[in-house]
Amino acid sequence: MTVLALSGGVGGAKLALGLSHVVPAADLLIVANTGDDFDHLGLSVSPDLDTLMYALAGLDNQTLGWGRRDETWSFMETLGTLGGPSWFRLGDRDLAVHVERTRRLRAGETLSQVTAGFWQALGIGPRGIPMSDDPVRTRVLSETGWLDFQDYFVGQQCKPVVRELAFHGVEHARPHPDFLAALAAPDLEAVVICPSNPFISIEPILAVPGVRDALRACNAPIIAVSPIIAGQAVKGPTAKMMQELGMIPSSAAVAARYGDLLDTIILDSGDAAEADAIDCRVLLAPTLMKTLDDKIALARLVLDAART
Amino acid sequence: MTVLALSGGVGGAKLALGLSHVVPAADLLIVANTGDDFDHLGLSVSPDLDTLMYALAGLDNQTLGWGRRDETWSFMETLGTLGGPSWFRLGDRDLAVHVERTRRLRAGETLSQVTAGFWQALGIGPRGIPMSDDPVRTRVLSETGWLDFQDYFVGQQCKPVVRELAFHGVEHARPHPDFLAALAAPDLEAVVICPSNPFISIEPILAVPGVRDALRACNAPIIAVSPIIAGQAVKGPTAKMMQELGMIPSSAAVAARYGDLLDTIILDSGDAAEADAIDCRVLLAPTLMKTLDDKIALARLVLDAART
Repeated sequence: MTVLALSGGVGGAKLALGLSHVVPAADLLIVANTGDDFDHLGLSVSPDLDTLMYALAGLDNQTLGWGRRDETWSFMETLGTLGGPSWFRLGDRDLAVHVERTRRLRAGETLSQVTAGFWQALGIGPRGIPMSDDPVRTRVLSETGWLDFQDYFVGQQCKPVVRELAFHGVEHARPHPDFLAALAAPDLEAVVICPSNPFISIEPILAVPGVRDALRACNAPIIAVSPIIAGQAVKGPTAKMMQELGMIPSSAAVAARYGDLLDTIILDSGDAAEADAIDCRVLLAPTLMKTLDDKIALARLVLDAART
Repeated sequence: MTVLALSGGVGGAKLALGLSHVVPAADLLIVANTGDDFDHLGLSVSPDLDTLMYALAGLDNQTLGWGRRDETWSFMETLGTLGGPSWFRLGDRDLAVHVERTRRLRAGETLSQVTAGFWQALGIGPRGIPMSDDPVRTRVLSETGWLDFQDYFVGQQCKPVVRELAFHGVEHARPHPDFLAALAAPDLEAVVICPSNPFISIEPILAVPGVRDALRACNAPIIAVSPIIAGQAVKGPTAKMMQELGMIPSSAAVAARYGDLLDTIILDSGDAAEADAIDCRVLLAPTLMKTLDDKIALARLVLDAART
């Protein structure tokens, strides 16, 4: 069975890790959001690709909840003493990824080639690709005007009220050809929308021209796992953003946002009451993924849902 | 008294540190070689400027003999696992200097502005400037052809036999205006050629158009400290290079190389026998600088020589 997963940051990477344990490596393709990529200190930073890479390589920093395991901070410390920009924290090990990615991109490799090289070097089985090799940059309209995504997300810690989101450059971005090929393949058995923020993790992927059409045209069921549990996001600004965009933070609102794309949405067992307000098939499951076993169990459930 | 010092790497930085203890900060200007600067991993690396900065800030790594104190190596370790280029070792703290310098250069600062900013941030009293804000790149002609300097110096550990040196771009480089201004100033009391490699540390400085003329025209005495002791270099390939270029490694050969630029050369006390072969004034002193006291004592001796 071939499985295609769409993922953003930490929540998505958790389910992707679960999937990597239950789907043979050759049959799993993970497509990552690149809308929150940015240039920082002259380096090409791809936070969602890296979150995914670290999670799948077992290198994620579970203490911090972001970044790399066994991290050291000499670079940031010294950058601070030199008066350099220190609002975006880059660990010494993490930095190697950005420096080497930037070097390879400048040497002419595509982002997906660089990603494939890194994943191979780190011994990751499944394939991961950016939604596009063309740059897409999420921007946030706040009360004070448009903000670059990382300025909003890290610099201002998601405090500004979000009025609107835009994916700069998306109209010229081409979906990664393997992304479209997987969607068109007759043996595709499931498209999994991982429990990432719909607005800033999944919708940039959906906004790449041709992706929504290809999703609608594909024969496999599209199954989302809601990132909302009891009206709250496990991590990040999803619930706050929903409120600011005029929605009641809920899995029902997530389902409504994805609309007729979805065949099935999986809600947390505690949110059974929301099922009535949702048009597509609803399944209930424990969706909070704390342990590897939680991730594997949820991944199995998603695959079972695809088969029935 | 205003003192101008010309410096390359580690040996030069030692005397510069000594001078910084005996000359008031406002009266000392140190000009650094930039011929061994290079772009690595997309970063602008200025080894001699940094050696000088670390020495003067008390941040030099005395265990390694190069780089920064309290260094960590997470970046290089990780770069290695990603398959990135690892022949040039960059510590995590050192890396911050290169990343921040590159960022500021791209933002439009000159190398001397960046350097001034760093020195101020690190609390270094005297001023240090690059010989030029324009790029000059030392190249080495070996038996196998022309090599970039760092390829020769670090990549091939100075093993290739040197036939010739060239300073790529030097014909278009303008000396730093403060360098020329100091040489023309009536209150200049000494020009000190630090004990650095004449061929790859001092001659790139001398090769910048206008520098030799300004040195000849200046009223202050020009005093060199020989980097050779008992026919050997304290550090680096100076002696090996002299042999390959057809000279007998000696302070006499260093004096001959600088020729009529010099008013005085200071040789190590053990090399008194070489004095007869030298045309300019010769002073003898212990020139091996192990401790800070050694550096200060030699600096005092240089200043005394300038006064007499």
